[in-house]
Amino acid sequence: MKRAVSIHRVENGIDSRVTDVVAVEEPLEIRLRYRDQNRWHTQPVSVTMRTPGHDIELAAGFLFSESLIESGNDVASIETSGAESNELTVELQPDIEVDWERLKRNFYTTSSCGVCGKASLQALDIEDREPLPHVFEATPEVLESLPRLLREAQNLFAVTGGLHAAALFSTEGKLQGVYEDVGRHNAADKLIGHFLLRNDPAPTQGILALSGRASFELLQKAWRARIALVAAVGAPSSLAVDLARRFGITLVGFLREGRFNVYSHSERIQLHKEDFVKQSNP
Amino acid sequence: MKRAVSIHRVENGIDSRVTDVVAVEEPLEIRLRYRDQNRWHTQPVSVTMRTPGHDIELAAGFLFSESLIESGNDVASIETSGAESNELTVELQPDIEVDWERLKRNFYTTSSCGVCGKASLQALDIEDREPLPHVFEATPEVLESLPRLLREAQNLFAVTGGLHAAALFSTEGKLQGVYEDVGRHNAADKLIGHFLLRNDPAPTQGILALSGRASFELLQKAWRARIALVAAVGAPSSLAVDLARRFGITLVGFLREGRFNVYSHSERIQLHKEDFVKQSNP
Repeated sequence: MKRAVSIHRVENGIDSRVTDVVAVEEPLEIRLRYRDQNRWHTQPVSVTMRTPGHDIELAAGFLFSESLIESGNDVASIETSGAESNELTVELQPDIEVDWERLKRNFYTTSSCGVCGKASLQALDIEDREPLPHVFEATPEVLESLPRLLREAQNLFAVTGGLHAAALFSTEGKLQGVYEDVGRHNAADKLIGHFLLRNDPAPTQGILALSGRASFELLQKAWRARIALVAAVGAPSSLAVDLARRFGITLVGFLREGRFNVYSHSERIQLHKEDFVKQSNP
Repeated sequence: MKRAVSIHRVENGIDSRVTDVVAVEEPLEIRLRYRDQNRWHTQPVSVTMRTPGHDIELAAGFLFSESLIESGNDVASIETSGAESNELTVELQPDIEVDWERLKRNFYTTSSCGVCGKASLQALDIEDREPLPHVFEATPEVLESLPRLLREAQNLFAVTGGLHAAALFSTEGKLQGVYEDVGRHNAADKLIGHFLLRNDPAPTQGILALSGRASFELLQKAWRARIALVAAVGAPSSLAVDLARRFGITLVGFLREGRFNVYSHSERIQLHKEDFVKQSNP
């Protein structure tokens, strides 16, 4: 989603009035409607700055990433109050219990970095998670084709230059889904929410391609969605590498045509070994 | 701050084991020590994922951005529990009252987008703020030199490729301060905190240069610090443009050598008008 604004464009010192297109950033309030002790309650759980569009997927992916729901079946309905609404209510199935303790741990954080929601350093200590299994492999050729495929899929990106993209590809390089947002975490939530709401297991067999950098938070989302291969055009952070190594995720960074780095679990990529000449002349 | 990790580098299909450098991302818990009803209390107020280094500036800038303090004089001390600690306590002067209502509004958000801390759409409604005054002008030449000056100042960026930078320049293009972080908001908080702790008014006369995109949140921080000119190498979001227009901030985006866009309050930039030939041949 984009908006035209009238601006001054200055080129070689010459000022012209032109119309530019900017990525839209608007707040979305996500509310949870749930039953507790035979009564229904509605409670806001998040306000996120997002690019409007696919709000239903975003809400589902967000609740799943935060472990408030475990599958699309936990959701009874998702309702917005209008076509261009910035408010949305997710009604849970009556038997779903909300883990308010988990939510409360989020209560005093105001970070905008991806661990919003961890109310203390202790809470950051990742629970004893099961590493993702080795269910597939991918070739370097497929990986190296992803940046181009991702760019092609990003119809918005070329226009505004201000949007992050998250896409799911099969190990053969077939596009399974792509979402964009001003926030990289939102793009991932939209993508994950899309498959969640369809009870589609594609993420467990696919590659998460990211247009930007790979943060701790994005690796957490990948792990929740059981995506075992994450390939980012940008750099990973140290904590992203740690998490990927510990929980069985193959993390690729600086992905380009002709080159990429593998930060963890390279066994999922069919690598050719460095040749003899290179080895003896390091 | 960076860390070396052993990785697979794949180039033209050839796999080699090399050492790569990644930007460090670690959680910092910021605690507030304050006096209320003649007793001292300590309360964690935020966990942010940041690149370690300049944590004192980060904490001061964060508390200021969140309107929990108004100047460096409100701070009695800032203490870390060790050289490489991920915990920090800010002790306020005994007469400073903490606006817990403001902090409480943050309590249920988990967004990682920059309006973390706004507990409802209402809270996003920006208070009736005074637009920043017109105190200086800058030339296109100085603006266009900033991306190069910023890159030169970013000694870390070249190494990891994973860090955002925020810098303050004078209107003559002289570097006043520069900070980097995995989180763009942290880089801005470190920069603003630096001047705040020194009671240095340089921000009110300077240009905030950003290595990436300009979000709503960064414009909010600029307004708090009374920085009237924000120049981003990347794109602005729609809400960033709105905020800049409403509150008297000159917002420059897509800043390059030879060209840039002005999204608001172009009166602070000494622009030459488009020449006649161009006007008649649009």
